[in-house]
Amino acid sequence: MDVVEVTPTFEQYAFTFGGVAPLMRIRPGTALRVWSDDAFCGALQKTSDLSSEKVDLRFVNPQTGPFHVEGAEPGDTLALHFVAMEPARDWGASAAIPFFGGLTSTDRVATLQDPLPDTTWIYELDRAANTVTFAAQHTDLEIALPVEPMLGTVGVAPPGGEVRSSLVPERFGGNMDTPQMRPGTTCYLGVNVEGALFSIGDGHYRQGEGEACGTAVEGAMTTTVLVELVKGGASAAFPAWPRLEDDTHWMTVGSSRPLEDAWRIGQVELVRWFGELHGLHPMDAYQLLTQISEVPIANVVDANYSTVVKARKSLLPRAAAYGGLHDDLRRRAATLR
Amino acid sequence: MDVVEVTPTFEQYAFTFGGVAPLMRIRPGTALRVWSDDAFCGALQKTSDLSSEKVDLRFVNPQTGPFHVEGAEPGDTLALHFVAMEPARDWGASAAIPFFGGLTSTDRVATLQDPLPDTTWIYELDRAANTVTFAAQHTDLEIALPVEPMLGTVGVAPPGGEVRSSLVPERFGGNMDTPQMRPGTTCYLGVNVEGALFSIGDGHYRQGEGEACGTAVEGAMTTTVLVELVKGGASAAFPAWPRLEDDTHWMTVGSSRPLEDAWRIGQVELVRWFGELHGLHPMDAYQLLTQISEVPIANVVDANYSTVVKARKSLLPRAAAYGGLHDDLRRRAATLR
Amino acid sequence: MDVVEVTPTFEQYAFTFGGVAPLMRIRPGTALRVWSDDAFCGALQKTSDLSSEKVDLRFVNPQTGPFHVEGAEPGDTLALHFVAMEPARDWGASAAIPFFGGLTSTDRVATLQDPLPDTTWIYELDRAANTVTFAAQHTDLEIALPVEPMLGTVGVAPPGGEVRSSLVPERFGGNMDTPQMRPGTTCYLGVNVEGALFSIGDGHYRQGEGEACGTAVEGAMTTTVLVELVKGGASAAFPAWPRLEDDTHWMTVGSSRPLEDAWRIGQVELVRWFGELHGLHPMDAYQLLTQISEVPIANVVDANYSTVVKARKSLLPRAAAYGGLHDDLRRRAATLR
Amino acid sequence: MDVVEVTPTFEQYAFTFGGVAPLMRIRPGTALRVWSDDAFCGALQKTSDLSSEKVDLRFVNPQTGPFHVEGAEPGDTLALHFVAMEPARDWGASAAIPFFGGLTSTDRVATLQDPLPDTTWIYELDRAANTVTFAAQHTDLEIALPVEPMLGTVGVAPPGGEVRSSLVPERFGGNMDTPQMRPGTTCYLGVNVEGALFSIGDGHYRQGEGEACGTAVEGAMTTTVLVELVKGGASAAFPAWPRLEDDTHWMTVGSSRPLEDAWRIGQVELVRWFGELHGLHPMDAYQLLTQISEVPIANVVDANYSTVVKARKSLLPRAAAYGGLHDDLRRRAATLR
Repeated sequence: MDVVEVTPTFEQYAFTFGGVAPLMRIRPGTALRVWSDDAFCGALQKTSDLSSEKVDLRFVNPQTGPFHVEGAEPGDTLALHFVAMEPARDWGASAAIPFFGGLTSTDRVATLQDPLPDTTWIYELDRAANTVTFAAQHTDLEIALPVEPMLGTVGVAPPGGEVRSSLVPERFGGNMDTPQMRPGTTCYLGVNVEGALFSIGDGHYRQGEGEACGTAVEGAMTTTVLVELVKGGASAAFPAWPRLEDDTHWMTVGSSRPLEDAWRIGQVELVRWFGELHGLHPMDAYQLLTQISEVPIANVVDANYSTVVKARKSLLPRAAAYGGLHDDLRRRAATLR
Repeated sequence: MDVVEVTPTFEQYAFTFGGVAPLMRIRPGTALRVWSDDAFCGALQKTSDLSSEKVDLRFVNPQTGPFHVEGAEPGDTLALHFVAMEPARDWGASAAIPFFGGLTSTDRVATLQDPLPDTTWIYELDRAANTVTFAAQHTDLEIALPVEPMLGTVGVAPPGGEVRSSLVPERFGGNMDTPQMRPGTTCYLGVNVEGALFSIGDGHYRQGEGEACGTAVEGAMTTTVLVELVKGGASAAFPAWPRLEDDTHWMTVGSSRPLEDAWRIGQVELVRWFGELHGLHPMDAYQLLTQISEVPIANVVDANYSTVVKARKSLLPRAAAYGGLHDDLRRRAATLR
Repeated sequence: MDVVEVTPTFEQYAFTFGGVAPLMRIRPGTALRVWSDDAFCGALQKTSDLSSEKVDLRFVNPQTGPFHVEGAEPGDTLALHFVAMEPARDWGASAAIPFFGGLTSTDRVATLQDPLPDTTWIYELDRAANTVTFAAQHTDLEIALPVEPMLGTVGVAPPGGEVRSSLVPERFGGNMDTPQMRPGTTCYLGVNVEGALFSIGDGHYRQGEGEACGTAVEGAMTTTVLVELVKGGASAAFPAWPRLEDDTHWMTVGSSRPLEDAWRIGQVELVRWFGELHGLHPMDAYQLLTQISEVPIANVVDANYSTVVKARKSLLPRAAAYGGLHDDLRRRAATLR
Repeated sequence: MDVVEVTPTFEQYAFTFGGVAPLMRIRPGTALRVWSDDAFCGALQKTSDLSSEKVDLRFVNPQTGPFHVEGAEPGDTLALHFVAMEPARDWGASAAIPFFGGLTSTDRVATLQDPLPDTTWIYELDRAANTVTFAAQHTDLEIALPVEPMLGTVGVAPPGGEVRSSLVPERFGGNMDTPQMRPGTTCYLGVNVEGALFSIGDGHYRQGEGEACGTAVEGAMTTTVLVELVKGGASAAFPAWPRLEDDTHWMTVGSSRPLEDAWRIGQVELVRWFGELHGLHPMDAYQLLTQISEVPIANVVDANYSTVVKARKSLLPRAAAYGGLHDDLRRRAATLR
């Protein structure tokens, strides 16, 4: 199986979902090997590079895309199976951007206080050990942390002619910032416009749940992704909100404010999905999920907050979503390497 | 080492934190084997027992306690190490109580809609298999789920003369409803009143994160707990909010509304604790935790919502809290069995 | 009609709702003239008196009471008609208390930022002009503002044996901090315990809606209040949340977090009241109120946030609550002066 | 002074802010007389017209515009002075749309409950009496309510290439749904794109604060508006969020979720404006506004919630915003009639 290599020029970076002409047209079944820049467009390279000086906040979180998927129409379901994610640089960067993050006032949680000190941390990558190193700024502590690559941002064009910043997580996916968006995961997104127009970006060499300070170990990433399309009859099983599947879990992602609404959305979507997967009445799905859900917060820092709601497959009867597409994509992925 | 057995009569059940005379006075170092009734006071025994008919909402979530810990004074830290939790009945119960839970309007999220149907599920316990069985009400599906016992409610008397319902999670602990409150965990709580006056209850044979419908697999529980007290010098390391420790993780629990504030509280408390444990400046702790935190939601249904914020010890330099008390309690616990 | 004068000693101040022995027993129909201290217990007298140095946060917002109303039982409705409020000192004080207020991070909206500067403002009272004077600290601006006296805190003992800080607004009333609690207003509260055990305090010489910085023009107050009790048949019209009535408006007060839930509570309670007053179906009351509600925020700074929801009587058919009690109390009040 | 009449065809309706070609280019100083359709595009004409059957939710809240204002550039301030609003039809409509509104679960406040009954109310307009009549659906009650016309939606194109649904209130204005947007008010909006590209719509014959059920007395409207532009030196006084001014009040509008964040935004923006108007230090403005703010909620039903924060001019020293533009526009408006 061939893999199509995609490396955009800076001029081709997309900073919105919707509102951008396709970078490329592809057929369902295509495997892509996509390079994406880091969320700062590479502007933070040493600890003296401060975000307030080096980062133009109008041009952050660049996406590679959008990709027009041939035959995709509103009501279809796009499936993106992530085969591999490889750090494309030897360092990652993280920053406490003034008035951005979870433990500071922001433009929304508006207070009259001074910002936290603008600070940048650089994480050196050790490819042999597969670690990135946290280096404290105020003491000598250094800690090597495992690389666990993920994509912060995966989304399609929104409905209704809207164009949204790549910083926004929403029903169309976008900047969900969940560590679950990693190799081995299949992401299902409802298609809103002809061609789906998906794009990906915001590589993280690792990230904790919540992304507390607002930025992960941000790094350029090379992502191998298999693209598939579910046509017809999709209406019944159309994902109202992003759904994820890996070998061990069924997952949904809700994004809104306040955070409990993000959770409600994800939990209701999983109730809905369990109706499709297991024929469960909503009240029974509500009860069953009450006892088995895992709910790792994704982000509490973006334009919307996001949570993941997960259910472990091994606890449940065997079921297949979208005709067993995830297993099929896993098999196809194995042929790529 | 002796273990003190405690089984309260119904008249001795406590329904508040604070405002109740001590059930027993104990010395630091005592091991207790505590029986606690389920959150419904045993009123739901079959699926036709509906909460609207059988449960007196003024008398729910009974606690066993309070225990007066000799020598405990405001500013000290109480440590409760959970050695074992054993289901004390052969069934657990869960219910969708009208206008209570996460996917329904409530007395707070007030709407004009009808309630969801009042429904009770009974989970039979299989002691040999160590499972409880979910039985769907609307289809034939039955699923055996592993027993993973935990306590929903662990707390001390609040400060300022307040008396709070046992349904409330707060700074003093209480109804946090996190699956992390399980055998092997040490819970640290700041002491607010002389004697600390802690109590425990709300056993769950298992619970998913979020406790979506508002009730777990509620069951009477026999809990073995080691009680310790950290005196003096505690001020620097006084837990402003509940702290948990097990063999693998440092954890904090924040409780408030909206849910992002529960998270903020837990995340700030863990930043504070990392200052104590690792000598980290708050900005460095903020950054480091951004990349390693695990944030499983505890509950989105109680009077306050709760989240846990965790950091994996194996990622971090070795550190000891409260003089290595958790390891010491683990050793002592081993002698009990 | 006689008026009973009540001036507590400092030792008699109440700092909670519930948990305090009655200051006095009174019969329904009694007129009281109650002195209450300011929220700082008089500790801030000049701008150099900083709250972090002079105020013991365990002893703030003192209440005068509780008053045991003879014959009051759970399920009854207590009516407090405010006849007059007179500043009892010649100055009021306001302060930006560190980590308290609406435009700062707090113990709940927890961030890592520094607090705003601890600042105290003193407002001199001009009795002849009936003004208090704002004096800027950083420039020369002085502005005389009309005195518009109100009580921040009016409440009864909570149900379920709870005891709550006088800083809390809740279903039982408490620290709602609405400018509507002023002379001419009747406040209806559901009785939770025998004797109702109401208390009042937290006089404000004036306050804007929201109480942005967390403290109004706090001042000792002399309040004349007529106390009445609605017995029997009250169940149908029992106020689930505080209800207010004056000559021009029907009003409810909801208190919770986030602020939209406070609003929802107040709006639903007014829908319920409109069913009682006008025989309206909930959907019709919902619609009608959508077009006529006035919704002035009360506070966005307390343990719960509060909003008032109002409907102008002149837009509506004539109706009487509780047998026309408000009009009756207005008549009785006129005989007091 | 000439007035330019504008009546769009259905094909010219705009359903987004941004993403639409200008309907017309105008010069600063132009007076427009703009017809706008109602939020339902006129689809609800009798009570048997249900929103679930008659309203296509992809095409609601049509705007008339956008208008390209010559010379407007990012960093400038657009001023829209509303001279008159006249109902353009003899009836208005309101509806409880399933899963939309404040006292129901929604796509965000997601629950498993059934929706409220889909219901439409028609308000007949009496031009002589200047009233619209509420007619209850479940009883015989009819109430004539004064017409108090306002526009729910006034906004400019957003920055960053975003295109937002006309249902969204945000920093760029949009669907704020405040009764303050009425004849006599000047609305100041920061310009984000060349030409400003403002549009208006969503006429309400009257609306309560909060817009509880989600829809006001929706009606086609003829609005006379004077358009002005503030160039240069605007940076210092650039409105970060919408500012309103009328003869009696300075006002700001914040929009976000949860509702307290909408309030924080508005309150901080008014603190900022008071620095410009009165030379006040932020701490002094914070204090002064604490004692004088009026905070009527605008909406608790839209994609963001909105609050207005107001300060009464008569309490304050005389001040002029934008060179006294509001007074000037009032004078110019008087020549139009």
